[in-house]
Amino acid sequence: MRAAVLYGIDQLIKIEDFELESSVPGKSLIQVQYCALNHRDFWITKGQYSGLKFPIILGSDICGYYKGKEVIANPSMSWGGNEKVQSKSYSILGLPEHGGLAEFVYSNPEYIYNKPAHLSAAQAASLPLAGLTAYRSLITRAKVNAEDKVFISGIGGGVALFALQFAVQSGAEVYVSSSDDRKIEKAITLGAKDGFNYKQEDWPKSFLQKYDGASVIVDGAGGPDFAKLVKIAYPAARIVVYGATNGAWSNVVIQQVFWKQLNILGSTMGSDLDFSNMLQFVEEKKIIPVVDQIFNLSQINQAFEYMSSGKQFGKIVIAVSN
Amino acid sequence: MRAAVLYGIDQLIKIEDFELESSVPGKSLIQVQYCALNHRDFWITKGQYSGLKFPIILGSDICGYYKGKEVIANPSMSWGGNEKVQSKSYSILGLPEHGGLAEFVYSNPEYIYNKPAHLSAAQAASLPLAGLTAYRSLITRAKVNAEDKVFISGIGGGVALFALQFAVQSGAEVYVSSSDDRKIEKAITLGAKDGFNYKQEDWPKSFLQKYDGASVIVDGAGGPDFAKLVKIAYPAARIVVYGATNGAWSNVVIQQVFWKQLNILGSTMGSDLDFSNMLQFVEEKKIIPVVDQIFNLSQINQAFEYMSSGKQFGKIVIAVSN
Repeated sequence: MRAAVLYGIDQLIKIEDFELESSVPGKSLIQVQYCALNHRDFWITKGQYSGLKFPIILGSDICGYYKGKEVIANPSMSWGGNEKVQSKSYSILGLPEHGGLAEFVYSNPEYIYNKPAHLSAAQAASLPLAGLTAYRSLITRAKVNAEDKVFISGIGGGVALFALQFAVQSGAEVYVSSSDDRKIEKAITLGAKDGFNYKQEDWPKSFLQKYDGASVIVDGAGGPDFAKLVKIAYPAARIVVYGATNGAWSNVVIQQVFWKQLNILGSTMGSDLDFSNMLQFVEEKKIIPVVDQIFNLSQINQAFEYMSSGKQFGKIVIAVSN
Repeated sequence: MRAAVLYGIDQLIKIEDFELESSVPGKSLIQVQYCALNHRDFWITKGQYSGLKFPIILGSDICGYYKGKEVIANPSMSWGGNEKVQSKSYSILGLPEHGGLAEFVYSNPEYIYNKPAHLSAAQAASLPLAGLTAYRSLITRAKVNAEDKVFISGIGGGVALFALQFAVQSGAEVYVSSSDDRKIEKAITLGAKDGFNYKQEDWPKSFLQKYDGASVIVDGAGGPDFAKLVKIAYPAARIVVYGATNGAWSNVVIQQVFWKQLNILGSTMGSDLDFSNMLQFVEEKKIIPVVDQIFNLSQINQAFEYMSSGKQFGKIVIAVSN
């Protein structure tokens, strides 16, 4: 089958004929239409992920055909029975098991769900990994509700955008941050009340003057700005941490953490229950994932280059066979 | 009345005749027998506390006489109606309102409780602030249970020792850390299973080899060792942060925070409910606060000097009038 294959760290991905195992016990083949990219895929190409193995077909997010129906797959595999945390045998589709940047991908039938009817195949492919991560962060972990004032950092990334859409649909008031004013404008069209450009050092002051504080914060950036998120947090706020693109926290005023009785909650991916709840929420609220751009499989290296530019607002999707 | 009065930052405390207001609406006078010290008092003498005012009589923890009975007082005032966090009008006995290092102290009658019958007056004076802080951290916030493996940093301090005693009485397995092997030995006599000297850089490795991980961590130190606590945390662990004696966190591996779905929970003092629950727990379990040393009121400056040495294991108590 035609596949995008990565043979090692920092190498260009090769489009070639690749032979999958002819059968995998307990798994079925899905014929892939679209596969959305995630930063996870990019980090793997850079070797910045644990459990690397090569050759590997990347790609955690697919929409395709299974038994004549259009389906998506939950990329979050072997979570286990504890809703609080994934098991030791947990893995994510696209490493170590081959992922969706190929004509076919194996999935356990229990992870296969009908494509939401209100979404195109490319939109549906954009949903699984980022939607799941955002849902667990915002709803399972932070337990967002309509009274919350939600601050989402780094708007434009897949998880941040779903967190924005889910928070708006939960009735909360939502604020965002970005280094790009155009992304902030786009977020406002998606329902954000306001946005702050974090290149302006004193953005927390402006935020606090206008809005007093945030009761829920969703952050995938970390880095020096994390201390500013702690600063703008309301007493008893929940700060969900799903990533650390900008590296380690620094200069966090810990007195604010304990005096304000803050909750800093780590979150990654989600359980089977999170996934089915997320899907139900998306279908009920008719949420449409934001697709930035669709590339063909032959343009996979350009697609990763575009991802590394950080210019995208929404998901980058690969048309595999359509 | 005879009182220990602080007139400014870094000044020696003066023992003198001090005139309290003749009445305070809604408050009653308690005749103080013993007043225990807390690090809070020490930080105030060094000017490292917000809302300083002088002259001030320090002291949050008293045991004394009220209406002919031996009583203690909850130093946590005007918490308000939200169990999750204290109100804006919240304050702690001993700043801005005069505290217990004097023959008499004003308290709202609703904060006055009978001295637990199984405790001496000096032991009872040791309980309120540190017992409340430990109770809220370990039980209200971390929701410790008999299946937990609890790690308590900096054993010897008041909060850490109560956390140890409360965790042991909850049926959990408890480990401690200290820079002083003798303190570790004493903690083991109080029910800790094992202890680790944090001056040994690789103590987390030893801990993980022997015990695999901790499901609850109680930390008042912060500083560079906080990253080690994140490292030894089990998946889904609760790390309660009630202080930051050693300053800001550094080099925390945030991937561990989100991949392990950790919960970093700030906690300070406690609500009225926390206090009465704590008192009930102490009485039911017949927990006896660890008193390190009793000084007379005239030795108050020596007592603070001793506190700053960090040699104590347990509470430093001042005999005010006995």
